[in-house]
Amino acid sequence: MISIADVQAAAQRIGDAIRRTPMMRAAPTTVPLSAAGDIILKLECLQVTGSFKARGALNKLRSLAPADVAKGIVTASGGNHGIAVAYAGRVAKTPTTVFVPSGVAPAKAARIRSYGADLRVEGAFWDEANRRALEMAARGVTYFHPFADPYVIAGQGTVALEMLADAPDLDTLMVAIGGGGLISGMSVAAKAIKPGVRIIGVEPFGAATMHDSLAAGRVVELAQITTKVPTLAARKTEAVNFEIARRFVEQVVLIEDAAMQAACEFLWKEMGIAADPSGAAAVAALLVGAYKPGPGERVGVLVCGAGADGTAAV
Amino acid sequence: MISIADVQAAAQRIGDAIRRTPMMRAAPTTVPLSAAGDIILKLECLQVTGSFKARGALNKLRSLAPADVAKGIVTASGGNHGIAVAYAGRVAKTPTTVFVPSGVAPAKAARIRSYGADLRVEGAFWDEANRRALEMAARGVTYFHPFADPYVIAGQGTVALEMLADAPDLDTLMVAIGGGGLISGMSVAAKAIKPGVRIIGVEPFGAATMHDSLAAGRVVELAQITTKVPTLAARKTEAVNFEIARRFVEQVVLIEDAAMQAACEFLWKEMGIAADPSGAAAVAALLVGAYKPGPGERVGVLVCGAGADGTAAV
Repeated sequence: MISIADVQAAAQRIGDAIRRTPMMRAAPTTVPLSAAGDIILKLECLQVTGSFKARGALNKLRSLAPADVAKGIVTASGGNHGIAVAYAGRVAKTPTTVFVPSGVAPAKAARIRSYGADLRVEGAFWDEANRRALEMAARGVTYFHPFADPYVIAGQGTVALEMLADAPDLDTLMVAIGGGGLISGMSVAAKAIKPGVRIIGVEPFGAATMHDSLAAGRVVELAQITTKVPTLAARKTEAVNFEIARRFVEQVVLIEDAAMQAACEFLWKEMGIAADPSGAAAVAALLVGAYKPGPGERVGVLVCGAGADGTAAV
Repeated sequence: MISIADVQAAAQRIGDAIRRTPMMRAAPTTVPLSAAGDIILKLECLQVTGSFKARGALNKLRSLAPADVAKGIVTASGGNHGIAVAYAGRVAKTPTTVFVPSGVAPAKAARIRSYGADLRVEGAFWDEANRRALEMAARGVTYFHPFADPYVIAGQGTVALEMLADAPDLDTLMVAIGGGGLISGMSVAAKAIKPGVRIIGVEPFGAATMHDSLAAGRVVELAQITTKVPTLAARKTEAVNFEIARRFVEQVVLIEDAAMQAACEFLWKEMGIAADPSGAAAVAALLVGAYKPGPGERVGVLVCGAGADGTAAV
């Protein structure tokens, strides 16, 4: 089991290579959002690489033996995780390979390449790209799973350390769920620091991965994915993420894709925040009332990623 | 003459109704920008109302006698200043009228109305809208000039107080110039706190208002405006702004509109920042090398406003 000590160690490891992103209260001007409650946003969209994913990738990298770093690193992701691993590879100056499916967004591909990674297009879906990444891993290159790796989970958990350090009176944390790496890491950290804090997950109706798994009491593989928001389009979570979520997550609320798009537009026009649809998911849950804070409830909302193209995968 | 005491008084007056916006170092990932020097951005695009203009409008409002507030307030602006005055009117719960030219951006008009202001479309250009605002002012309603009012100038100056408090080792401040209210307020504050700090203004080639005035040694009215960035499209500055700029501004650099658009895209894609073209102007000056910091120079760059539509006026 991952513990708060792992998350604190991650914070030490990665501190010089990530940003401590700011928090910002929705009041006084943003009426539709501040009317939902006392809302404080964590602007992880300002993170290096554009999302929280840099935290997990760097923690994994810096937990490796130097000899393993030197052998090179590999992952499969055409999205924010791929960018984050490419960045980690640049920080470590080690050969980095990122397999991506053929539908990769040009902007994401360009950013992966801009950090010096070897970008390889393989297959139409993540599973195929990932098979090639695992083949390379079998030859000794270190593989970075996007969400089921304990070091990746602990790295993502550092977001919660910062939120509760900067706003210790938060009653609730709201977090979007893709594969479940972020919410599991944040839950471990937040519940250790403040056992009474509520953890609310947010998923699209079209990829209710964790919601359905929690309802079933076991990891469920979705028969189909209908969300158009690829950063949240995981077909299934993994056991390590599920077990943490089962223990710590109070509730997973579901929202429509259109609510995320509307929340993106709201954040852009009313608050000057360049979130991508998954980054806006937790805000969307408040705006549509999928989660309704109680009187006086102080809600910390994670805006987990930046960018308008909405074309990230995993 | 406006003094640092005026700016400090402004900070006291407006503190509860604005955000203390965060600063963010461009390093470690944003190579084209961080390669230009040690760049620290002030994210005023996250300000309430979407730009620094809220500061000046609120300082003006809160400097008025209660009887004058009660008579109502008026301005002319289809852009960020109009939004800011509408917000100030909402804070004071006083009747607020905003005259706008017919080309006002729908999003800006909607935002002005959302704060409860009476939006009136008058004429094709700002001058015509402003004539109607001045007529209303002649009947006793308090008029808010967008940049030549000493309280507006002192309010905008609070940006520099925050920048030098959060990053006291800055050598240089870079600021976009429209009418000159922002750079004059910031100059007064910054030079009082740190006389050696360099103030660099940024204007479009197509509206080199302050640049040409400083070159001529007097306020120059431009024969034509060719920039398509309306927030920077002032035909002339005013004496109060010019005299401060003449005393304190080291240099005004000029950039193309296309450089601002490219800087907007850079900020959005690489840094998760939703700047409008004028908000990106100072970043643009660094990216194209219109201003080249010296070795070790620490440059504070103001990202002064948010939004993508680029349709604000004044």
